[in-house]
Amino acid sequence: MAVGETRSPLAPKAFPKLPAIGGVRFASSAAEVKYKGRDDVMLAELAEGTVLAGVFTRSSTRAAPVLDCQNKIGKASHQSGAAILVNSGNANAFTGQSGATAVQAITSAVAAELSIPEDRVFSSSTGVIGEPLPYARITAQMPTLVAKLHTDKIADAAQAIMTTDTFPKGAHYKVQTPEGTVNITGIAKGSGMIAPDMATMLVYLFTDAKITQPDLQALVSELNETTFNAITVDSDTSTSDTLLIAATGASGVEVTANHGGFRKGLHKVMLDLAHQVVRDGEGASKFVEVCVTGAQSDQDAKTHAMAIANSPLVKTAIAGEDPNWGRIVMAIGKSGAAAERDLLTIKFGDITVAENGWVSPDYSEEQGAGYMLNQEVVIAVDLALGQGQATVWTCDLTHGYITINADYRS
Amino acid sequence: MAVGETRSPLAPKAFPKLPAIGGVRFASSAAEVKYKGRDDVMLAELAEGTVLAGVFTRSSTRAAPVLDCQNKIGKASHQSGAAILVNSGNANAFTGQSGATAVQAITSAVAAELSIPEDRVFSSSTGVIGEPLPYARITAQMPTLVAKLHTDKIADAAQAIMTTDTFPKGAHYKVQTPEGTVNITGIAKGSGMIAPDMATMLVYLFTDAKITQPDLQALVSELNETTFNAITVDSDTSTSDTLLIAATGASGVEVTANHGGFRKGLHKVMLDLAHQVVRDGEGASKFVEVCVTGAQSDQDAKTHAMAIANSPLVKTAIAGEDPNWGRIVMAIGKSGAAAERDLLTIKFGDITVAENGWVSPDYSEEQGAGYMLNQEVVIAVDLALGQGQATVWTCDLTHGYITINADYRS
Repeated sequence: MAVGETRSPLAPKAFPKLPAIGGVRFASSAAEVKYKGRDDVMLAELAEGTVLAGVFTRSSTRAAPVLDCQNKIGKASHQSGAAILVNSGNANAFTGQSGATAVQAITSAVAAELSIPEDRVFSSSTGVIGEPLPYARITAQMPTLVAKLHTDKIADAAQAIMTTDTFPKGAHYKVQTPEGTVNITGIAKGSGMIAPDMATMLVYLFTDAKITQPDLQALVSELNETTFNAITVDSDTSTSDTLLIAATGASGVEVTANHGGFRKGLHKVMLDLAHQVVRDGEGASKFVEVCVTGAQSDQDAKTHAMAIANSPLVKTAIAGEDPNWGRIVMAIGKSGAAAERDLLTIKFGDITVAENGWVSPDYSEEQGAGYMLNQEVVIAVDLALGQGQATVWTCDLTHGYITINADYRS
Repeated sequence: MAVGETRSPLAPKAFPKLPAIGGVRFASSAAEVKYKGRDDVMLAELAEGTVLAGVFTRSSTRAAPVLDCQNKIGKASHQSGAAILVNSGNANAFTGQSGATAVQAITSAVAAELSIPEDRVFSSSTGVIGEPLPYARITAQMPTLVAKLHTDKIADAAQAIMTTDTFPKGAHYKVQTPEGTVNITGIAKGSGMIAPDMATMLVYLFTDAKITQPDLQALVSELNETTFNAITVDSDTSTSDTLLIAATGASGVEVTANHGGFRKGLHKVMLDLAHQVVRDGEGASKFVEVCVTGAQSDQDAKTHAMAIANSPLVKTAIAGEDPNWGRIVMAIGKSGAAAERDLLTIKFGDITVAENGWVSPDYSEEQGAGYMLNQEVVIAVDLALGQGQATVWTCDLTHGYITINADYRS
């Protein structure tokens, strides 16, 4: 599916109004890496002193820019400026030595243009795997990009990084502290090849908080587990997954990884963006929350929740508005995590569907079928074995997913 | 999808001619458990001395008849006769205490009708999960079934156990030994909720070989790993998966678990039936073999092969006849098993697609696209890390799968 196709029915009404973050400027332009007639490169320029942290795909076949980011993150001095450059249309993944050459060419061009050290330039590429990245088209855009840099161009940046996405994704939160206000904004892209056991998709977060690199890294890694690592569209994990967060310190407000307000705000922005990725899941028509409680451990709860959220039979039943709770029983059974058939309770929203090893005596198919007409569906499972719990989010599996993915490249 | 819909394009031309196995008689009838106008119950009567072994789903939410089979298998004396009764249309899974009651009613009715001990009667149920099994409709068929028992009714039995299957599945192999000929036949059902990490679907194997129960059990468990446990349609594992093998000894030929000819024959019959299940995969239009070599261990090879075979993005690409080998790289990367990006070799059939961390210099998209037009596709991956290898089989993911599963119950 090309960008510009029908907006997901689950999309937010509009891209949110994102305030400028002190110390960050954005630009985008059309390098025609693959797509024509749209911006496909975005540059974020970060002021001196900006602290960066990141989370990356654990794929063993990860892309060249991911390897480069991992080498650099947390290592360079924060005294100089920094930058993030992202292109869409080509993932620069599984492109052999030429992949590293392309990353080197791009990051050194950015570094030269902005007069910053190369090890403070981070890049991502997203799109088709295995095709050489025509990086000269990107480096040729450097003067244009730098000339366009502006504090209020984040919406354009969110557009430029889209591939099969049907809407740009942005979120914002203002943290009030006694010392002043801290802003957190973020943009993300992703709608297919989304699975959470390894890492994420492309996510760029910006804050004017003042925080140390180790604290920023610890906090974003922790919050990633319950946000981007708790969503799945299709159980497939991208080779390019990258989350970068940049803290410019422009607010002058110092925070730590344990600052309640900052944690809460960052979690909100990350969860909001993670949900937007699910809402733009390829072919999605329903937004589904799977909440598992009473497991022997949180990990067991997540294993069950993901087995349900990734089951093609559960996902097609939801697409068909069929309250086929037997498939939820199946998914719990196959997950490998501990479950006792006769202790399970399964609910659709507030409706108790199954308990004591069978359908609930008060449940009627009409109730379940009525509930399934909702665009947002909550599946809750209690295992009655312990205190472990997890919530994950997914979408349904529709004809749209097949249509998009049977001919994405052609 | 109801039985009787269009036959899978991957189906064999016809149901094979299966010779009678000494000591086994079959019957089928229409109990109207769920389906109308077709047989939905099958009975296999087994002569005195028949040895039985089985493999069952490891699902923690497995169905009542599976639990009953597991309790009985290998325990009862082989001196008396035995029987297998199977119904389609209702899985008797997650039906609480009433599930066990239904199994008890059915197995005791069969035992009484055939004058055999109850612990020599094995039953299976397949179909919808969570609805009470109207077992009285089945027990009411006992006199009819017993009256119809005949050595050449195995084809009818194969029909009676179908659910979303579009064709009945049967296979046969004759083992020539110095002591005489041994016959092995089998029937199977299954086309959705097929995933191999735990067990199988419904499979019934019959042989006139004379073999001890421990040998038969050891052999069938071993061969299951490279046959039924090496196929996947949709990564979902049934709550009812059951494989039963009955050795009547009627040939008078004694074999052991290490008998070369018998092992080979049984493997052939099991692999043939496993492939037929894949060929009837819900919505399947392509039969896909995934062969992984050079892994650090056989288990690693299977993990990679299954990651490829279960990837919705790989399967939709195959459906779209798109030689999108980048998605194979992605699946290897996400599997969690060891892989070195720059050592991988990926082939479509004999065509080398990728090597040395990139597309092969001799490969052209036209070649790959031409190969993808085949109805049978082989994806071969060599990891160049060790001696581990595994082959698994799957089908593509098409609009047909969505159509079948978005409204199976309604």
